Amino acid sequence: MSKLKIYILLVVFVAISSCAVSQSHPKLILTQKGVTEIRAQLNQLPVLQSSVQKAVSFVEEEMEKGIDVPVPKDMAGGYTHNRHKKNFLVMQKAGVLFQITEEEKYAVFVRDMLLSYAKMYPTLGLHPANRSYAPGKIFWQNLNDANWLVYTSQAYDCIYDWLSLKERKKLEKDLFRPFADHLSVDSPQFYNRVHNHSTWGNAAVGMIGLVMDDQELIDRAFYGLKSDNIKADQKDNDGGLIKMQGDGKAGFFAQLDHLFSPDGYYTEGPYYQRYAMYPFVMFAEAIENCKPEVKIFDYRDGLLLKAVETLLNLTDVNGLFFPINDAQKGMSYLSRELVSSVNIVYHFGGKDSGLLSVAEKQGQVMLDDTGLSVAKAIKEGKKTNYKKRSANYKDGALGTEGALGILRAGEGDKEVCLVMKNTSQGMGHGHFDKLSFSLYDNMGEVLPDYGCARYVNIEQKFGGGYLKENNTWAKQTVAHNTLVVNGESHFGGSTDTGNKFHSDPFVFDATNENIQIVSAKELNAYPGVEMHRTLALITNENFEKPLLLDVFRATSDKENQYELPYNFFGQLLSTNYKYELPEVLKPMGDAHGYQHLRLEAEGQSETNNAKLTWFVNDRFYSITSFVSTDDKLQLVRSGANDPKFNLRRDPAFFIKKNPQKNALFVSVVEAHGKYDRVTEFADNAFSSISKVDVLVDSEDYTAVSFQDKKENSWMLILANKDASKGAKHELQINGADFKWNGAFHFVLSK
Amino acid sequence: MSKLKIYILLVVFVAISSCAVSQSHPKLILTQKGVTEIRAQLNQLPVLQSSVQKAVSFVEEEMEKGIDVPVPKDMAGGYTHNRHKKNFLVMQKAGVLFQITEEEKYAVFVRDMLLSYAKMYPTLGLHPANRSYAPGKIFWQNLNDANWLVYTSQAYDCIYDWLSLKERKKLEKDLFRPFADHLSVDSPQFYNRVHNHSTWGNAAVGMIGLVMDDQELIDRAFYGLKSDNIKADQKDNDGGLIKMQGDGKAGFFAQLDHLFSPDGYYTEGPYYQRYAMYPFVMFAEAIENCKPEVKIFDYRDGLLLKAVETLLNLTDVNGLFFPINDAQKGMSYLSRELVSSVNIVYHFGGKDSGLLSVAEKQGQVMLDDTGLSVAKAIKEGKKTNYKKRSANYKDGALGTEGALGILRAGEGDKEVCLVMKNTSQGMGHGHFDKLSFSLYDNMGEVLPDYGCARYVNIEQKFGGGYLKENNTWAKQTVAHNTLVVNGESHFGGSTDTGNKFHSDPFVFDATNENIQIVSAKELNAYPGVEMHRTLALITNENFEKPLLLDVFRATSDKENQYELPYNFFGQLLSTNYKYELPEVLKPMGDAHGYQHLRLEAEGQSETNNAKLTWFVNDRFYSITSFVSTDDKLQLVRSGANDPKFNLRRDPAFFIKKNPQKNALFVSVVEAHGKYDRVTEFADNAFSSISKVDVLVDSEDYTAVSFQDKKENSWMLILANKDASKGAKHELQINGADFKWNGAFHFVLSK
Repeated sequence: MSKLKIYILLVVFVAISSCAVSQSHPKLILTQKGVTEIRAQLNQLPVLQSSVQKAVSFVEEEMEKGIDVPVPKDMAGGYTHNRHKKNFLVMQKAGVLFQITEEEKYAVFVRDMLLSYAKMYPTLGLHPANRSYAPGKIFWQNLNDANWLVYTSQAYDCIYDWLSLKERKKLEKDLFRPFADHLSVDSPQFYNRVHNHSTWGNAAVGMIGLVMDDQELIDRAFYGLKSDNIKADQKDNDGGLIKMQGDGKAGFFAQLDHLFSPDGYYTEGPYYQRYAMYPFVMFAEAIENCKPEVKIFDYRDGLLLKAVETLLNLTDVNGLFFPINDAQKGMSYLSRELVSSVNIVYHFGGKDSGLLSVAEKQGQVMLDDTGLSVAKAIKEGKKTNYKKRSANYKDGALGTEGALGILRAGEGDKEVCLVMKNTSQGMGHGHFDKLSFSLYDNMGEVLPDYGCARYVNIEQKFGGGYLKENNTWAKQTVAHNTLVVNGESHFGGSTDTGNKFHSDPFVFDATNENIQIVSAKELNAYPGVEMHRTLALITNENFEKPLLLDVFRATSDKENQYELPYNFFGQLLSTNYKYELPEVLKPMGDAHGYQHLRLEAEGQSETNNAKLTWFVNDRFYSITSFVSTDDKLQLVRSGANDPKFNLRRDPAFFIKKNPQKNALFVSVVEAHGKYDRVTEFADNAFSSISKVDVLVDSEDYTAVSFQDKKENSWMLILANKDASKGAKHELQINGADFKWNGAFHFVLSK
Repeated sequence: MSKLKIYILLVVFVAISSCAVSQSHPKLILTQKGVTEIRAQLNQLPVLQSSVQKAVSFVEEEMEKGIDVPVPKDMAGGYTHNRHKKNFLVMQKAGVLFQITEEEKYAVFVRDMLLSYAKMYPTLGLHPANRSYAPGKIFWQNLNDANWLVYTSQAYDCIYDWLSLKERKKLEKDLFRPFADHLSVDSPQFYNRVHNHSTWGNAAVGMIGLVMDDQELIDRAFYGLKSDNIKADQKDNDGGLIKMQGDGKAGFFAQLDHLFSPDGYYTEGPYYQRYAMYPFVMFAEAIENCKPEVKIFDYRDGLLLKAVETLLNLTDVNGLFFPINDAQKGMSYLSRELVSSVNIVYHFGGKDSGLLSVAEKQGQVMLDDTGLSVAKAIKEGKKTNYKKRSANYKDGALGTEGALGILRAGEGDKEVCLVMKNTSQGMGHGHFDKLSFSLYDNMGEVLPDYGCARYVNIEQKFGGGYLKENNTWAKQTVAHNTLVVNGESHFGGSTDTGNKFHSDPFVFDATNENIQIVSAKELNAYPGVEMHRTLALITNENFEKPLLLDVFRATSDKENQYELPYNFFGQLLSTNYKYELPEVLKPMGDAHGYQHLRLEAEGQSETNNAKLTWFVNDRFYSITSFVSTDDKLQLVRSGANDPKFNLRRDPAFFIKKNPQKNALFVSVVEAHGKYDRVTEFADNAFSSISKVDVLVDSEDYTAVSFQDKKENSWMLILANKDASKGAKHELQINGADFKWNGAFHFVLSK
């Protein structure tokens, strides 16, 4: 630290004397004005200072190891992959440190590494792994090569003026220009899509173009390649079509037009939105710095700012992204992409003081003008709590392809959050999980989404890539908390079919604190079956925490087998019904994910209610379901047919109905009580629900009720056909008349 | 808080005016001198203040609910059980608050609750549950009744002087005296043992005797009942014999003489030692306060002080007790018993400044003279780090019944700790796990002990009591990291047999930083089989963290099937051998714990080394074992024959040898690397060990070696028969001569 302080002092003086000399670089992310201010204010701004210190530690440690630019060989997780990834991260940071500290050693390090790349690059063919639809030269896939250039163009910008003209010429001729060409003209199937891969490609080409002042590259980044000869049925490694529907345009503006909904929701889901955000916000910052006349942050009604706000709201209590679609769990708003996003949105957006508390949790800021803004505002005490909220994020470029519903109720240790997926398929990384939901409380996941079957960058697991089980299990319907009909996944498990459809949001109302509700229909997942699910978070002083009420209706002209899984974690404590254990455990099927499940217990209820209580993280949870005495109540566990032990052994509770035309599933889920392992006290370890009932179920109306142990009783009536707010409804239930306006009516009926 | 501050000020003045009036109570735990000082210094001592505030919140909340003294009915976890437990906790705290704050409402509350008990008690027969070998009247077992009296005698002491003579007479006649009699003369099988139950009984009777100045009760507490008529084969609920070997004495001094080893180790293990500690230290404090002439803390060479130090050292990096024998995981030195213990040992012991950092983590102090000492010392900045250490704790009253070996190496995120169980059986709560070990790193358990099969105070799980699976699984040998011979548990699974024997410590040497070693033999677990295990923690700059080397030798005159389990957590990443998966999963046996296991994969190595790498808590772990190509390498998982889902589904790796006379198992276990879910970087994800080899294995010597990927190689030679330090040894291995003194010789042989 003391070393740092000394040069900070030095820097301040040097800065004052040197800032008058106008130079053209840095201009991309760091600006000359920004550098001057950072130098001047660094030692007053703790979070900026610690971010610099962190960068210094990282860069110094790598500099000590010496420069290593190995000939590309390995897949993700392997040595050459990791080395090249570290190289671009360290060059970017070293470039910034050169600007901030003016210590030449950093510039020398970046230059020498770049020259090593410039020496090797012309000798490289495609990466030898030959596993990608669009191979890179440095990495097995062009996507990673684009990452490299997005970061490295920042490093180049930082030492541009310091380099000799000859060095610049060599780097541009042997490295940057051919690199940008390989990403674009040589790889149209990678570059000319509307896809997060292409966004990285566009940003990479655009950012190096801005640094080099190369208008051709800038245009190519903004508008794509003029021609590409991509075939209509060409697909990527994830099975996604290269050319989606759309207006045929490509380039950065096409990404902005098509990849986000008007609400800033990204159809692949938050895990990929996080990944995609970095090139969006960084390239946008670069455009704003170099070409302010584009007004990039105003584009599409401030879309980029909205996208970041949306992304931050798609996190649980710990800041972890909801792992819908292909998503590795554990990724959070602490990621470097979100550091950039939050800083950039704060600086170029409305200076939302809530963002400062996210930035504080991130514990670091960008080393640029935007990070400076954030660090100054934190220092000035402007921080307020970041308030997450209930929201219904429309999906699709026009906002017409379904929605992702988020309901939040309760505060502090009573917080409960629900995510309901009524969106479109989510492209190649989408799962077959129409109308699925996941439930969170203040400890994290309660009824989880499995996430993806992948160990990113862990080489032992298929080089860190998607595992076979991602397709055979994680994507399948039965792995989710949603209805399985006739033992098959939605759309028969076809992504191409799924891509054609989306669910239809029916009701979203988060205005009433007592009951927040989200409801949607799905008409295409199973031809001939109409699915309609309504989920409500109910807050009432008689319950410790908000309850989840789940009403799932399926109707059809022919008999089907309906099955509703609830995935959970931890240890079963009790059931209110008897069950049998199979003598041996075997796979429950041979396709659609059932091949990965084993039945551990099966029973039937002697009443119309089945209750399950379980225990995890020293908390208690219960589900109480209205069932028929014929319904099979199954406890199952994942992990069958898993020769590489790729899957977790997670439990689930299935309600399986005998073949019938229509089915209605009604459940109340409670998070309740806690256990203290030190005092060994168990508080509120039992469910409060004494009864769940169905009062009416017709084409027009469904009315369900539930009761607590003190015999308080609540009723929810749903209008199944007409969700309009103005519609007047009237219904007689058990001799009593109920009249209301709108899609639902919630009554405390003690 | 503001309310508190006001009365603290009031209190200071009142204290000054009232302290001159000498009264006889409180004198048990709180003393009059202590009360005066606490009142005077409270608002200068944050941790004392917050402890008072915590007590105020707890007591006020309970006072608001009103007094409830229900007729006893429920088992542990049920309402009346929990209510009576809360009652004694709240009375004790309210009594103390009356003394500290002088607010009469607390005394009124205690008095009224005591009078309710005095009204009910004479009407009670034995608790209706009828499940204990020694039923209480308030609780299902006398043990809990004794808990009640240990706490309540403190409450009574605090309001003694404030009560009218008539009230005192009523309480003593209808409640305390008959209560003490029920615990003792009415329940000799509970009271007159050498056992933690009896310690509670002795302390309860003694503490109320001290408050009431009843010499008969005090003598009964110190020396037990004169006659008890307990039959020689009478057993308790856990299958433990009521009368153990010993000198036939009973009472508190007999507990001190027999329950602890000279090193302060308690034969049942740390979980029960923690539980047992409270009556020991509290009664000792009471004796010291009321009868200082006894010099109780000097008894047996300062045994009680040693016992607390030992207990604190029997914790992992998070302060969790090593869960050997029957122990619920999660119990830690944050428990109230350890708060008392630490405070009392600090105050009456040598004022060890390391204890202050434990007290600070506990975040609370006792509201008595000892807590005051700790709070003052913390305030004065006397705290130093509490340094845990390697130690070999002798077991048995005379220290002659085996030992528990603890090795610790590495610091910070490199910390590794090993616990090897070479003790006696541990009485009724003991497990059949001779020479077993568990391994910890800075994240907690790596190769775990299962702990007990019990959910303490969780009513849904058999009323919170020990589950059937505690006997059929948790106690069995195969549930532990130790050798199973011929598919049976040690001592055929008989506690009575196990109680007769102990393992024989062979070597313990923690003096060398490079290699710390613990070795023991077991001659009785399997008649005719000699087991000899040596475990070493090896610290070397070529490895990220200290390694574990495990050398397990079994010798016999006849052929046996030898099997060595390693229990782990998390997800398998890779093996270096091929395996087959069974089509269906079924129990692996029908007894000795195998009925609860299912085989998930079985293979054989084509070389003499088998390697397994797994992943948990974002850390990597590997085991590399010297095996024969005939050895069956099994991946198994617990949870079979578990109709109530009482067991966790934990994985284990088994090395199973074909029948043979002698067997040698040699393994190296590495904790290595880490994964970051936010950056998605995997560091050091691969094992560093390239080879494990056996060079010599004779009656006299065993020499094993291991090698890293850089071809550094290490060798450990063990003298199998003579462990004496002075002994000279000489051995030729592959043509090279090795000479050394003592039980082992460790060589870096590159």
